[in-house]
Amino acid sequence: MEVLNKYNEALTVRLRSAVSKKEPKQLYEPIQYILSLGGKRIRPALTLMVCEFFGTEFKKAIPAALAVELFHNFSLMHDDIMDQAPLRRGKTSVHEKWDVNTAILSGDAMLILAYRYFEDYEPRIFQELAKLFSETALQVCEGQQFDMDFETREDVQVVEYIQMIEQKTAVLLGAAMKMGAIVADASEEDKEIMYQFGKNLGIAFQLQDDYLDVFGNPETFGKQVGGDIIANKKTFLYLIAEKKGSKAQTKELAHLFTINPVEPKGKIDTVTKIFRDSKADEASRMEIEKFSKKAYALLDKVNIPEDKKELLRKFGENLMQRDV
Amino acid sequence: MEVLNKYNEALTVRLRSAVSKKEPKQLYEPIQYILSLGGKRIRPALTLMVCEFFGTEFKKAIPAALAVELFHNFSLMHDDIMDQAPLRRGKTSVHEKWDVNTAILSGDAMLILAYRYFEDYEPRIFQELAKLFSETALQVCEGQQFDMDFETREDVQVVEYIQMIEQKTAVLLGAAMKMGAIVADASEEDKEIMYQFGKNLGIAFQLQDDYLDVFGNPETFGKQVGGDIIANKKTFLYLIAEKKGSKAQTKELAHLFTINPVEPKGKIDTVTKIFRDSKADEASRMEIEKFSKKAYALLDKVNIPEDKKELLRKFGENLMQRDV
Repeated sequence: MEVLNKYNEALTVRLRSAVSKKEPKQLYEPIQYILSLGGKRIRPALTLMVCEFFGTEFKKAIPAALAVELFHNFSLMHDDIMDQAPLRRGKTSVHEKWDVNTAILSGDAMLILAYRYFEDYEPRIFQELAKLFSETALQVCEGQQFDMDFETREDVQVVEYIQMIEQKTAVLLGAAMKMGAIVADASEEDKEIMYQFGKNLGIAFQLQDDYLDVFGNPETFGKQVGGDIIANKKTFLYLIAEKKGSKAQTKELAHLFTINPVEPKGKIDTVTKIFRDSKADEASRMEIEKFSKKAYALLDKVNIPEDKKELLRKFGENLMQRDV
Repeated sequence: MEVLNKYNEALTVRLRSAVSKKEPKQLYEPIQYILSLGGKRIRPALTLMVCEFFGTEFKKAIPAALAVELFHNFSLMHDDIMDQAPLRRGKTSVHEKWDVNTAILSGDAMLILAYRYFEDYEPRIFQELAKLFSETALQVCEGQQFDMDFETREDVQVVEYIQMIEQKTAVLLGAAMKMGAIVADASEEDKEIMYQFGKNLGIAFQLQDDYLDVFGNPETFGKQVGGDIIANKKTFLYLIAEKKGSKAQTKELAHLFTINPVEPKGKIDTVTKIFRDSKADEASRMEIEKFSKKAYALLDKVNIPEDKKELLRKFGENLMQRDV
């Protein structure tokens, strides 16, 4: 993402030496491995960008940014065990390359290492960052648990789903941005605005990810189109179709989400049609629009120069208009 | 332990409501479960006791003590997965009662919840506690990794073994005591003395645990005597016997530690005899004595009243003279 390039460069160097300890190898090598797999580094770059936008040199926010990225990779390492995911960013996941025990313990160490990055700050900033971090990390755990619970629940409500993606995905974006504002010693109001901006954009982003999983362009989407349907994942689209569809559609949908055909094309096509016919696609686009607008509206009140607000809007647009 | 009774009572009440959140159930119930299993609560009681000995009301140290106890239970929950332990304190372990995913995620949440307890303190104390906590927690992870590595290594040195138990077990005792001193705003020197006192006593305690596993009284030891021998665990006794034993003894020992007889009595008896004949038992008693003495000697210099020093010595003696 172009607006983040400058920060990404600064991060890449620091992430290479983020975990300098070598022994025991079995503990630290998996951490170095997962950090070397890349990823877009959006979250830590946001921490740096927001810090700069509030008039403080972005380098001051690097430790906080590294904490965010380490936490994110900790959650990926443990989630991959829980989801039995063989791959992470196209490479073998840690519990597959080593084993489950290694992925548990290295993940634990990574969470602790994340906290240690805050030690670079003076006590008042340290406490504020660590408090926000703990609150956010716990919400991410809760979100992951709700997500797993939803797999076996038949009565998931739309509002619960939004809350789940807020916790599992969006609060970390909000926290990453707020941390930049904390390091820059912004006002309470400005810190809160940055948090809400990131969180609302994060919800819009996750909803769009669900949407593109069904309606994205297979040539450019990156992931397998229809992947959530194959996995019987009850996303926003499913929950709306279940609520708004005709009795026949609802019944067929419920049935299709209990089967796992070897050749899934027929199932994907039928579900996609139900999503369209029940106007779940439209409802989804409107919901994405709602959260995006909510995010952008927040920028009116924040105390940063107009050109910086423009860059935040541009970041939002870049994030939402991925190659699809 | 008598000297700790008073603190244990205060802790029991607080631990019952330590994790008040209820949803998602699957995340928080395993935490409440493992905390309800009891245990001796030695570590958090030490935090309270040391705080009081430095002239500050022990109640002030309760949040720090709860953080220590939550961390300890987090490490038990994750270690039990890694060790495939079916039982914890005589009850079903979390990954058995629920499943591995639950034990991973609830453990993660417990580690984060531990950090949150420090939020009750002012920024300077918060930072000092959280720094010590992170450093200690990381050492515990490293110790656990070294312990697992040793299972497959043939060349473990005595000094490495001592370092492993220091990290896996002893530093948390040291940190628990130092936290009490931090909350009481003791001098740097006094804080360090309490840390070293706890750490050295912790090493002595673990060495004695290894010793009693072989030479303890089966009637009163609590665990199965010979358990480490059955599990082919290379403890201090093994490493000394391997180094000091005759060629024939060393060879037999090496062989016995590759087999898993259904009826282990013969193996236990032979290994026990080798431990005696090679004077590994004596070396072990001397090493325990060395670390205990090192701990007690530290008390000469600490700035607390003489009767409190006496209670710390009494605690050490209680810890080491368990019913065996």
